[in-house]
Amino acid sequence: MTSCNSDLDAAIRRVPDFPRPGILFYDVTGILMNPRVFRYCVERLAVRAKEAGAGAIAAIEARGFIFAAPVAERCGLPLVLVRKKGKLPGETVSRGFALEYGEDSIEVQKADLATPAHILIIDDLIATGGTLSAAAAIFRESGFSIAGIAAVIGLPFLNFRDALPGIPIHTLIDYHGEET
Amino acid sequence: MTSCNSDLDAAIRRVPDFPRPGILFYDVTGILMNPRVFRYCVERLAVRAKEAGAGAIAAIEARGFIFAAPVAERCGLPLVLVRKKGKLPGETVSRGFALEYGEDSIEVQKADLATPAHILIIDDLIATGGTLSAAAAIFRESGFSIAGIAAVIGLPFLNFRDALPGIPIHTLIDYHGEET
Repeated sequence: MTSCNSDLDAAIRRVPDFPRPGILFYDVTGILMNPRVFRYCVERLAVRAKEAGAGAIAAIEARGFIFAAPVAERCGLPLVLVRKKGKLPGETVSRGFALEYGEDSIEVQKADLATPAHILIIDDLIATGGTLSAAAAIFRESGFSIAGIAAVIGLPFLNFRDALPGIPIHTLIDYHGEET
Repeated sequence: MTSCNSDLDAAIRRVPDFPRPGILFYDVTGILMNPRVFRYCVERLAVRAKEAGAGAIAAIEARGFIFAAPVAERCGLPLVLVRKKGKLPGETVSRGFALEYGEDSIEVQKADLATPAHILIIDDLIATGGTLSAAAAIFRESGFSIAGIAAVIGLPFLNFRDALPGIPIHTLIDYHGEET
C-alpha cells in the first residue's frame, strides 16, 4: 500500500449499523474534506479512464457523481448520468436490480444513449455490483462497449466480480470485511 | 450574452411538465454531454469561488454534486455534502424547508461542521431558493460565514433573492419564465 493509499484509508470513515443494523458503511465524505486525498482519487480514476481508452464516463447517483464529474471534466469526456427511477426528465431506459439492502431501479436518458461509446462507469464504492451490472446492461443494449468500472472503494467479499463477468474492474482501495 | 453563454444556453434542454404538469424543467444533462460547455461552467464557478475568497465548497444533492465536486477539486478546497434526510451516516444537523413543489429536509454531517469556514454553496439551479436558504442556515448556525451561492442556472422570476437576503448570488445564465 503506497503512502497515498494510506492517506486514502485514513480518510475513509467506518460507520457501523448504517443504513441499517449489521451493515458497516464506508463513508467517503472524509475524502471530500481532504482536498489532497480527493485530488489523488480523481487523478487515479482519470488515469484509469485514459488507460481504458474511454470515450465517455457514466456516473452512478448520487455519490458516484462526486468522483465521475471531475474525472469527466479533467479528461474532456461526455458524462452520462445513471439515476434512480423518476429523477431524469424526458424519455429514459430503465432497469431493475437487487441492492445490497433492498431493491431499486435505475434509468438513463435516451438522448444520452443515442451515440454509443466506449464507456467507463464510475461509482464511489462497489459492494454486490447490482447497480453497476444494471447500468452496464442498459449501455450494452444501446450499443455501447464497457471500458470498465472504476470506484474508490471495493468490497470484494461481497463478490461483485461474480455479478460483473468480463468487465475490467478497478478500485483504489479494497476492504475485506474483517472489521464487520 | 457571450458566445460561450450561447453555447451554454443551447446545451440546456427545456422539458415541459416535469416533474409535474405546469413546470418547465431546465435540464442540465445536455451540458454534461458537451465537455467544452461543462468545462466552461466549472471554470466560471471556480473563478467565482476564488473571487469570493471561499475556504470551502458546499454541494447540494444531487445535481449540485456534479458542478461542486470539480470546482472543489480544481480549487483544492474541502467539499461539504448537503444531502436529503437519511442519506448521510453518523451524526447530522438537519433543517426542513418548502420546495418549489412540496416539502423536504436536508442534512449536513456534524463532522463537516466542526471547522467553520467561509463557504460557497453550489447547486445546478436556483429556483425559489428554499433548499439553499436552509443550507445557509445550517452553516451559519455552526459558525460558518457564507461566501455566496453559485449556480449554473437562475430562475429569478421565482424570487430566490427574497429567500436569500444578504447573500451574494451568482448564476451563469438566467431564464425569465417567458417560455412557460
